[in-house]
Amino acid sequence: MSCSENDPEYLATDECKYEYLDHTADVQLHAWGDDLKEAFEQCAVSMFGYMTELNTVDMVDKKEIEASSDDMAGLLFQFLDECLFVFSCDPYFIVKKVRINEFNKENFTIKATCYGEEFDLDKHPQGTEVKAITYSNMQIYDKEDQHEVFVIIDI
Amino acid sequence: MSCSENDPEYLATDECKYEYLDHTADVQLHAWGDDLKEAFEQCAVSMFGYMTELNTVDMVDKKEIEASSDDMAGLLFQFLDECLFVFSCDPYFIVKKVRINEFNKENFTIKATCYGEEFDLDKHPQGTEVKAITYSNMQIYDKEDQHEVFVIIDI
Repeated sequence: MSCSENDPEYLATDECKYEYLDHTADVQLHAWGDDLKEAFEQCAVSMFGYMTELNTVDMVDKKEIEASSDDMAGLLFQFLDECLFVFSCDPYFIVKKVRINEFNKENFTIKATCYGEEFDLDKHPQGTEVKAITYSNMQIYDKEDQHEVFVIIDI
Repeated sequence: MSCSENDPEYLATDECKYEYLDHTADVQLHAWGDDLKEAFEQCAVSMFGYMTELNTVDMVDKKEIEASSDDMAGLLFQFLDECLFVFSCDPYFIVKKVRINEFNKENFTIKATCYGEEFDLDKHPQGTEVKAITYSNMQIYDKEDQHEVFVIIDI
């Protein structure tokens, strides 16, 4: 239906009386590897890949992290949370590669090295802020021919 | 801690073994007006404002819509859903202004006119797709000095 000159409504624009609140979002990370250790490493890197373009990141520094828990899901959560923490305080450190040096599947402990550099908005395009790791629908598969994890993060 | 030449890990980049799945997001719309009718109109416009820049939209056409329900929350849902529907099929119609011509608060019915034009990617920057209206935490206030609504939409 076409507007006509007889219809005054199509001429005037309304005052804006609205706003947008409380934006929430999540994304599911899916990572895999030749063993569970590699799947964990890849999962951590995928998280950083959401924060910036990883091909802009050089590995000039490193940060050591440790994580421990009572079960494998808790270990994955704590491991990712520690990775997130290296980015969360000034100087923000953006990670391109993660190496788990000690992965104890009986005691659920991890020692790892994060390779990257200080985050620099002039060099690294700003991606999406990762607000939190979640346990929601977390899946960890560690069979002979299947080493993969699924983790939902709040963004 | 700095990387050193003795550490081979900082040279090589890993193969990518991850992907991003199942992105979900929502945003809460908050709209108000001199009466509930205006708050409903503004809420509909705020939804279209999430889809594109409304200052790029001219009002050259109009679409008539009708909505009805058994209560006010259902009416707001159906009204927004009808507005969303005018955008959802080819030719996609983007709305800049909404006028509710009949707002029956006893029988919960609405007749309204949506002013806008056919959506054109060369003219209208693509915003975010609105996937669905939700009843989640929907709030409708219609008091003497408070006419406002809160609606969460999936994007």
